[in-house]
Amino acid sequence: MSEPPTLLYEGKAKIIYPTADPDILLAHFKDDATAFNAQKRGSIVGKGEINCTISRSLFQYLEQRGIPTHFIDCPQPNQMRVRAVKIFPLEVVVRNIAAGSLCQQTGLPLGTVLKQPLVEFYYKNDALGDPLLTRDRLLLMELATAAQVDQLQQQALQIDRYLEEFFQNCGLTLVDFKLEFGLDAQGQLLLADEISPDTCRLWDNADTDPKNRIMDKDRFRQDLGNVENAYQQVLKRVLAQAATINN
Amino acid sequence: MSEPPTLLYEGKAKIIYPTADPDILLAHFKDDATAFNAQKRGSIVGKGEINCTISRSLFQYLEQRGIPTHFIDCPQPNQMRVRAVKIFPLEVVVRNIAAGSLCQQTGLPLGTVLKQPLVEFYYKNDALGDPLLTRDRLLLMELATAAQVDQLQQQALQIDRYLEEFFQNCGLTLVDFKLEFGLDAQGQLLLADEISPDTCRLWDNADTDPKNRIMDKDRFRQDLGNVENAYQQVLKRVLAQAATINN
Repeated sequence: MSEPPTLLYEGKAKIIYPTADPDILLAHFKDDATAFNAQKRGSIVGKGEINCTISRSLFQYLEQRGIPTHFIDCPQPNQMRVRAVKIFPLEVVVRNIAAGSLCQQTGLPLGTVLKQPLVEFYYKNDALGDPLLTRDRLLLMELATAAQVDQLQQQALQIDRYLEEFFQNCGLTLVDFKLEFGLDAQGQLLLADEISPDTCRLWDNADTDPKNRIMDKDRFRQDLGNVENAYQQVLKRVLAQAATINN
Repeated sequence: MSEPPTLLYEGKAKIIYPTADPDILLAHFKDDATAFNAQKRGSIVGKGEINCTISRSLFQYLEQRGIPTHFIDCPQPNQMRVRAVKIFPLEVVVRNIAAGSLCQQTGLPLGTVLKQPLVEFYYKNDALGDPLLTRDRLLLMELATAAQVDQLQQQALQIDRYLEEFFQNCGLTLVDFKLEFGLDAQGQLLLADEISPDTCRLWDNADTDPKNRIMDKDRFRQDLGNVENAYQQVLKRVLAQAATINN
């Protein structure tokens, strides 16, 4: 029996382990749930497997459409082998409909459909509370070059178009979502992290009630109940849509 | 005896009265001081007269250099007649050196000299806490057009160059400052509001102590004492420099 590998990094939702190949890492998806910069903590039973499996389907879907991702395969339902990347310390958020901090900070009513998708950059820094970045601040802090910012923005918009279509075919509206990107050893830009109800706001098209329609981590954030059910429902629909595409 | 005019608007630092001419307003500068979105309240003795007089000198200086402002004249030391404008609900902040919220939100150390001035837009909205705006949010909220944003940015940078030079000649470093702009009845962009130790961070070049050098409202915000002295000192130097220029 070999010793369990020493973890490389433990985040709020994942633990990252090294592998024998320095270009490959193993991501272990946890059931732990946090919100409001980890001020609220809890657990969503089965979330690790669900989010890993949803992410796998969506990464495969995006790869088929020419978006390079860090995804390799899933040796276990809650484990993903990924290409090692140097992550940009940025949360790249794409918004199609106003929700969350956008409403709080602009006064735009919840549910306002944006004329065009809004791409926003936040500084991935818990101590500072993941603040919103202007383009000039991002460049001043040298978190990416101007060319990289343009590339991240274009890639995020392309991913938004693909994901919106995918989720529409699941009967879900993609309200907004958070992406992370990194550069591999060859300097290629890869979509990293995960795509799941932890990182996307998804509203059920079949339900107009502003609370019932929520199918994502806002159920946990707002103590709406039925959190596990919502995650399982998203998984079921994503797997069905992925099967439709691949058949 | 005529009745005192009904005020048109009362802000935190000024009261605006109408005049017989609808294109002209009278701004009454108050001694009241507020900070942290009015959570901290107090008074700075003589501030109304000091800020009105400093603003007069700086508006005149900028007008002489081709920057259109709302300034007309001062019938009293704490009163300014100004052209009526439709104010953009924006605080246009120019930063030469990192201080205040820029440090809190980016982790940049206080006093970091920026490679080039940073122009930032904040939504002038007390209920929302005057949040930082990205260009895209500003446009989405239709607070100004893209062409207006460009014009505000260029005008703010030009004003920064003129004010930096002016204050250097006063032995003061212009760390950052907040401007407000409006459009007059003819649609001309005018610099409005005030330029004073309430709206500028100014550091005394002769003092390297990070607290003693502060010559602006940060003395009030941070309870550093000698607030009135600092304001009076800035007034004295501004008047001397204005006299030098005009002789």
